[in-house]
Amino acid sequence: MEIIETVREMQSYSEDLRRRGKKIAFVPTMGYFHEGHLNLMREGRRRGDCSVISIYVNPTQFGPNEDLARYPRDFERDRRLAAEVGVDVIFYPSDKEMYPPGYQTYVNVEEVTNNLCGLSRPGHFRGVTTVCCKLFNMVKPHVTIFGKKDFQQLVAIKRMVLDLNMDLEVVAMPTTREPDGLAMSSRNVYLKPEERESALSLSRSLKMAKAMYDEGERDAARIIEKVKAYIAGHPYTKIDYVQICDTTTMKDVSRLDGEAVIALAVRVGTARLIDNYVFGEPLDI
Amino acid sequence: MEIIETVREMQSYSEDLRRRGKKIAFVPTMGYFHEGHLNLMREGRRRGDCSVISIYVNPTQFGPNEDLARYPRDFERDRRLAAEVGVDVIFYPSDKEMYPPGYQTYVNVEEVTNNLCGLSRPGHFRGVTTVCCKLFNMVKPHVTIFGKKDFQQLVAIKRMVLDLNMDLEVVAMPTTREPDGLAMSSRNVYLKPEERESALSLSRSLKMAKAMYDEGERDAARIIEKVKAYIAGHPYTKIDYVQICDTTTMKDVSRLDGEAVIALAVRVGTARLIDNYVFGEPLDI
Repeated sequence: MEIIETVREMQSYSEDLRRRGKKIAFVPTMGYFHEGHLNLMREGRRRGDCSVISIYVNPTQFGPNEDLARYPRDFERDRRLAAEVGVDVIFYPSDKEMYPPGYQTYVNVEEVTNNLCGLSRPGHFRGVTTVCCKLFNMVKPHVTIFGKKDFQQLVAIKRMVLDLNMDLEVVAMPTTREPDGLAMSSRNVYLKPEERESALSLSRSLKMAKAMYDEGERDAARIIEKVKAYIAGHPYTKIDYVQICDTTTMKDVSRLDGEAVIALAVRVGTARLIDNYVFGEPLDI
Repeated sequence: MEIIETVREMQSYSEDLRRRGKKIAFVPTMGYFHEGHLNLMREGRRRGDCSVISIYVNPTQFGPNEDLARYPRDFERDRRLAAEVGVDVIFYPSDKEMYPPGYQTYVNVEEVTNNLCGLSRPGHFRGVTTVCCKLFNMVKPHVTIFGKKDFQQLVAIKRMVLDLNMDLEVVAMPTTREPDGLAMSSRNVYLKPEERESALSLSRSLKMAKAMYDEGERDAARIIEKVKAYIAGHPYTKIDYVQICDTTTMKDVSRLDGEAVIALAVRVGTARLIDNYVFGEPLDI
């Protein structure tokens, strides 16, 4: 497994692979791997002749009062886990390599980022789409793999790739969950034991939303109300949002006619957790 | 010479060239060619194994009260001229191909676009950098050629390419001028004969600025004052701006110590004309 730290080396490595007709699969990450990351990497291995991942805690997607400084990092552990999965290259750039002095260019996906986390985390998606655009130009992948846990991020990335005509396939992978249903997240490490129990209310409320939908409920407000009440009934929780949106536009819907997603953001203790469920899909909890 | 009209065909054409180790040189244009465009194309031929140009009057870089509707177009003439120069491919996409329904992604270069035309044409550079980002992803060039006549555009494109890590060389070519000094522009067709005479005040004022600089003048305000007075002394002219800026940041400078450019935008009749001179460089008028 190679560790590449500079843009120049990464680009020439990828250009060489492309000239030799090799297919590059790419998983961008912020590190501190859990099974969800590893599943994306496994998919990368299946889809590419060469599987590249990046590890970079991207400062431009954190707000001034967010958890950039305490975001968990453990490169040695990440390196070991990636090697075990069979990753070929870890791209591990520095802040200076990513945002040198004078940096001033941003990619904005305007509409799908206007709701949900776009409201509670201003600038977040601008940071995400910008860093992904940069990483795509560095790694030059044929296919990139994202998790559905960050659903709005996935929609924004797909929209950017489509709108900016990036010649790149975006593959979405199901959320990986703990045996008890909690969506895996690097931020779960912030949860104290008593908070972790309350955090289960997110996935359980999605299961409840699914049951209502499966029984024929199509009124978004009624599902949202039940979900909010359920989560609010657990200690240490503070709901940021519970919304049901069209999966393409990410605009709120009142009726569940087209393809819709219920998306949650909830603070549990000091952790801000998100989860979602696309109606009609399986939910293994 | 090939004419390609769809993104899919353009990308697969370019991908095939790249796999065969061919170097792609690209000149994006809005058509209605003059000798300035043809010089960029000739440079493209010199620098690439395959020279691609695009012809697309990009609506997102025109303001609501600008000349999008009347912008001159003549595809048959352009096709003939490009063929004479030896261009290999004209990429000629439709609006629908470039901005399909639901389009919502924009690339912003924030600082260098805050001055000059960025002030008088809000949104202009956002449109330019976005369409160039798209075209680069479609044509996949190794090298792209821009004219220095649109100096701030050149700086913004260079900044975008650097910031977003596009693996692409940006080549700048000197402004092509009429024998009497007028900078070539597709918009010169808007000039009535009596206005064209006044339009010469732009290039002549740059010559004057150069002379002052060559004689040792380093105070920006004094040069600007003379230039403004000279242009204002001609009928049909209305100065939009005359400024002297740092060539990297595009911020105003008061002393001509580092590399500086004097940039002009002047309405002459219904035409908005721009011109510029980088101090210390030759000026063939």
